[in-house]
Formats: sequence, C-alpha cells, structure tokens
Amino acid sequence: MSETFWAVVPAGGAGTRLWPLSRKGSPKFLHDLTGSGRTLIQATLDRLEPLAGERFLVVTGQAHRDAVAEQLPGLDPARIVAEPSPRDSMAAIGLAAALLERQDPTAVMGSFAADHVVTDPDTFRGVVGLAADVARDGLLVTLGIEPTHAATGFGYIRLGGPLAGHEGAFMVEEFVEKPAAALAEEYVASGSYRWNAGMFVARPSVLLDLLAAQDPDFAAALRGIAADPDTLDEVWPSLPKIAIDHAVAEPAAAAGRVAVVPGSFGWDDIGDFASLAALVPATDGLAVLGDASLVRAVDSTGFVAANGGRVVAVVGLDDIVVVDTGDAVLVTTRARAQDVKQVVAELGESRPELT
Amino acid sequence: MSETFWAVVPAGGAGTRLWPLSRKGSPKFLHDLTGSGRTLIQATLDRLEPLAGERFLVVTGQAHRDAVAEQLPGLDPARIVAEPSPRDSMAAIGLAAALLERQDPTAVMGSFAADHVVTDPDTFRGVVGLAADVARDGLLVTLGIEPTHAATGFGYIRLGGPLAGHEGAFMVEEFVEKPAAALAEEYVASGSYRWNAGMFVARPSVLLDLLAAQDPDFAAALRGIAADPDTLDEVWPSLPKIAIDHAVAEPAAAAGRVAVVPGSFGWDDIGDFASLAALVPATDGLAVLGDASLVRAVDSTGFVAANGGRVVAVVGLDDIVVVDTGDAVLVTTRARAQDVKQVVAELGESRPELT
Repeated sequence: MSETFWAVVPAGGAGTRLWPLSRKGSPKFLHDLTGSGRTLIQATLDRLEPLAGERFLVVTGQAHRDAVAEQLPGLDPARIVAEPSPRDSMAAIGLAAALLERQDPTAVMGSFAADHVVTDPDTFRGVVGLAADVARDGLLVTLGIEPTHAATGFGYIRLGGPLAGHEGAFMVEEFVEKPAAALAEEYVASGSYRWNAGMFVARPSVLLDLLAAQDPDFAAALRGIAADPDTLDEVWPSLPKIAIDHAVAEPAAAAGRVAVVPGSFGWDDIGDFASLAALVPATDGLAVLGDASLVRAVDSTGFVAANGGRVVAVVGLDDIVVVDTGDAVLVTTRARAQDVKQVVAELGESRPELT
Repeated sequence: MSETFWAVVPAGGAGTRLWPLSRKGSPKFLHDLTGSGRTLIQATLDRLEPLAGERFLVVTGQAHRDAVAEQLPGLDPARIVAEPSPRDSMAAIGLAAALLERQDPTAVMGSFAADHVVTDPDTFRGVVGLAADVARDGLLVTLGIEPTHAATGFGYIRLGGPLAGHEGAFMVEEFVEKPAAALAEEYVASGSYRWNAGMFVARPSVLLDLLAAQDPDFAAALRGIAADPDTLDEVWPSLPKIAIDHAVAEPAAAAGRVAVVPGSFGWDDIGDFASLAALVPATDGLAVLGDASLVRAVDSTGFVAANGGRVVAVVGLDDIVVVDTGDAVLVTTRARAQDVKQVVAELGESRPELT
C-alpha cells in the first residue's frame, strides 16, 4: 500500500430510517449499532487505519463536528471538515478532493461512508488496495459488492471486461438504478452485476477533472474553496446538490473512465432495522442491542434495542422490531421497517425535537 | 330498594395479567383502565351508590389502605377494612358479613369486586335490586351474566327452575368450573348457563350460617373477629385460604339454597389486555389508553397504553398490544396477552421491584 493513500469519510445522513435510535442531531454514524463496542464512525476509521495511517479527512455537518471530534480523539481536529449545510455527496467528497489535491499531489483518495458496516475488514482492505493501484493509472475506481441476495434497495454496477494489468479489476459497463424485484433477480442470476456501495477511489485531480467535464463551475468552485478556505461559508450554499454517482460516476462510466474491483467483505449500509437485525448477534432468533439484561422475551424472534434503561418484555411475536429509548418507543416488524420514515415525517411536523 | 342494602367491595388481586400497567403495589382497581376518568374502584362505588348510599365496606390489603382512602375521599375511613394479608375471597367477604351482622341486623349485603367493569349501570342496579329482594327470603343470590361468547376464562352457573314470587330469578342447579372451548360452546348454545361473575347477595347471617354448615370453625372465627376487632391480626393468619365459590356457593347450591338473577349489563373482569382492549374506545381499530397525543400509528390495530410520557410509534402491526410505562415496556398480541404472567413470574425472581 502506498504511503499516499488518503481515506475520506463523509459522515452525514438524515437518520430517519433507524429512528428512534438515530436522530437528526445524532445520526447513525455516532452510534454503536452492532454492539461491537465502537460507533460506526469509529469502526470505519479503525478499518481504514492500516491503509491510511493518519491520513484521514472526515467531512461532516457543523452540528456534528464536536461529537465527531469527541469520538475520534486520535484524529487531528484539523482533519475534520465541517460543511456549513448538507449539499449531498458530490460537494462533500469533491471538497475533500480539492483540499487533498493541494495538500498532497501524490495522493490517491478513497471515500467511505461513516455509517456502513464491514464484517471482513482484511478482505476489504485488500480490495481497497487493489482499487488504489488501479486509481494511480488515472481511472475512477469503485468497489463492487458481490450480491448475497436480490436486493432492491441498492443500485448495481454492470461489469465490463477485465482490466489489463490489474488482475481482479474490471471496467464498469454502466451503473444502474435500484431495480424492481424481478430485475434484481436477473441481475444477480447473470453474475455480471455487483452492488454499488458508493465507495470510490481516485486521484483527487482525476475526480475533479471528471467533474469539470460535466460541470466546470462546480469543480472550479470546489478548487476555489480549497485555495481560500475562508470562502467556504460564502460559496458553499451555491454548490449543486447532487450525488457523486450522478455528477461523476455515471457519465465517467459512459466515457470508459471507471473501473471496478469486485469484492465480498460483509458490507451493509444498515438501511433499516431489518438490515440492522441481521448484523446483531441473536439468541433463539432474537437479536438484542443495548442492555440485554433489560430484555425479557417469551416465544419471540426479531430485534430489540433496549436503550431506554427500562425493562422491555416481548411475548409471542415473530420478526418483531422493538426500539426503546428515553423519549420514544418504536414497535414494528422487519417487513415494515422501511415505513418508520412515515412516523419520522409526521413527527417532523408535530414533535420536531424527537426527530 | 331497601335502605339496609350494603355494598361490600373486595379490593384485591395480584395485578399480574395487566402488568406493567398494574403492579403488586398498585393493583388494577387503583387504575383508570378504560379512560373513563375514574379508577375501577371509584367506578365501582359510583355504580353502587344509588343502592347503598354511604353503606359501603371496602375490604383491601393493608398495603393499599391509604391509596384506597385517597381515591375515595367521600368514604368514611372506618368503612375501609384492611386485611393483614391476602386470604382469598371467603375470608374477606366473610369478615365483612360478620361485621355487618353485628352492625345492622336488617342488612342485606352484596359483594362486588373493585376491579370489574359494567357498561350499563342502570340495568346492573335493577338486577342487584331484584337479587336483594330475593336475598331477604333467606337465600344466597348470585348474578348470572348472559354470555356474549363461549368464554373459557369464566366459571358458569347452570339455571334451575324459576323462583316463585320473584319474576326474573331462578334457582341455581349448579356452579361449573371454567370449561374447555367445546363445552363452553355447548353451555352457551343451551341457553341454560350464565357466567359466574363472583357477585353474591345475601343477608350476612345467611352467608355465615351457610359457611358454618361447611366449616363451623371458620364462621366462628370470623364472628369472633367482628366481636373483638383487636383479635384480627392474631386470628387472620389461621383462616383458610379459599374462594367463596368453593366454601359456600357450590355446597349451598347443592343444598338448594342458591338463587340467580340473570342479567346483561356489559360486565367484564378485565382478565387480560385482550379484554381491556375491547373496553377502550378505538379509532381505526386501535384502542389507546393514557395520553393519546403520544401515539403514532401507521397501519396498525390493537391496543396501546401510553403511560410513560414518551412517544409510542407502532407501524404495520395487527392486534398488537403495547404498554409503555415509566420503568417497563410490554409488547405482545391480543392472542398472547395471557402469557404476560410468564414475564411477571420471571421478574418476580430477577427484578421484584418491577412486579
């Protein structure tokens, strides 16, 4: 692994799908959601440290800067970049790229969300290392997760031909949107598709030049902020709100500039309580997060988070989801876990302090 | 209605089947479980006051005496009889009978548990009035509830022939235990059975003499306490622990000494959360007790008690039961509501302060 690998960690997210565990003021990356003893952002940095050493840039909202600094005492606070407001992933990752472009002309950067889970970090690092090697050749490189099921909640990457000189890497034929169930089945059965986990590796200037090819003003604005950080607050609100996938990855793939390194390392983005339940150790089918000594279960399977300090008793329920916190209790099922956002939307109107 | 009708109100119960709403230290009669604005014991006295005026005896545990007095500010505290320990219904009701036998030789007493619900109090009072008329003739009289379904959770009363001189009253052929489902169906289909709600009306001396016919020492001990109340603490622990049904009602029925007045007045003993759910007003199939402004429901039916001051969100669940309190949360279904007692039994070992 080259000494110039930098890990960029965007730490954002609305925190609505894991409510009431995560909140606007306390998004999921600040929580230990798997009972590992480390919060998701801590685990993200732990996982990348063998590659990046101290070369991190964490991009987060101003509201979360202090909490991030507190959770990462080993990180130089100057490595925490605070966004004045959320402007989606292109602005966040692009700003990091612009800063690194000036700071370290030899840098290869990889961007990894602060709120994902990887259960096999060794394999993960191997894949990232290969992606960094490819990125040095001037390509944008993405990681393609081997699908474990026909997920409809992720976008997919269609593999092209193998990449000469980099065994295990392929060109990207195209990125495709989240598919309907039947199409997802086809994708997985074909063997030619991987999940798009939104992890990109590139030389900073390559990333910014690819952006400039689509939106020169956007790239120039990011480079301008990096040249004069005092302009951040003024320029930031004018930046487009767009995901890096749409701004760069899709057009670059169409132009033959994107490679993919497929891998299988137990990745999950914990998109809802059904995903989370699968990541938490279970006894007799019941996964328990928080203080397990508070949980009393009779003939029940599913997921219980006991984070409210109170006893949580569950009797005769299958695939139940119960989340107890100090000011709110959620009861749903694995199958309906996505619909928690309806509750959060309503509370945003009636009790915004709880969201 | 004669001016000598006395209402005896046994206020006891273990409080395990409605945990965590009710507790050992705060049994269900102390709670407003139907959202009526009155606790069950308050509603019980409200319902009987047109018949009994101020002639009440409330028999409760010493631990609950202060709470009962506080909830019934209009009741002369001397009318609250505190049992030194729980010794089942024969001791509690028999002590009241012995006290009344000395206090008012013209008394007819009716015994009505403090934790039952009656939704049609006018009809209830009419039935009790008729029972009191019959009781003056020297019979033990019970109220027989018209079954609304083939319940397996109640004992039944088999009607005998009509009672001459008291239209609407019948002799009791026999009391039968809680039946299995098929037998309950037969009972209800026959038209000859009524639910035994444990409500008895009799002249105190008749009740005590019927007891004496079975257990002369027991009756003598109760009359001895009434003659010298200072002996209560000493004598009480030696009294048999037996239900009034077994001690008196069943043998008296076999001896042709028990009448029944059938009636239909919306009676329920709130034996579990399934019963309670049916008594609480529902919107779109979801019954809410406590602070309804805390409840957020999406596609859900069943019962939610929001007694913990926190938001309770329920998403995509049918016939769910969620009970939120300050120190415990219960999640179950209407069908499994009876199994809450398993949790309470376990907590009795591990966290007795919560039971």
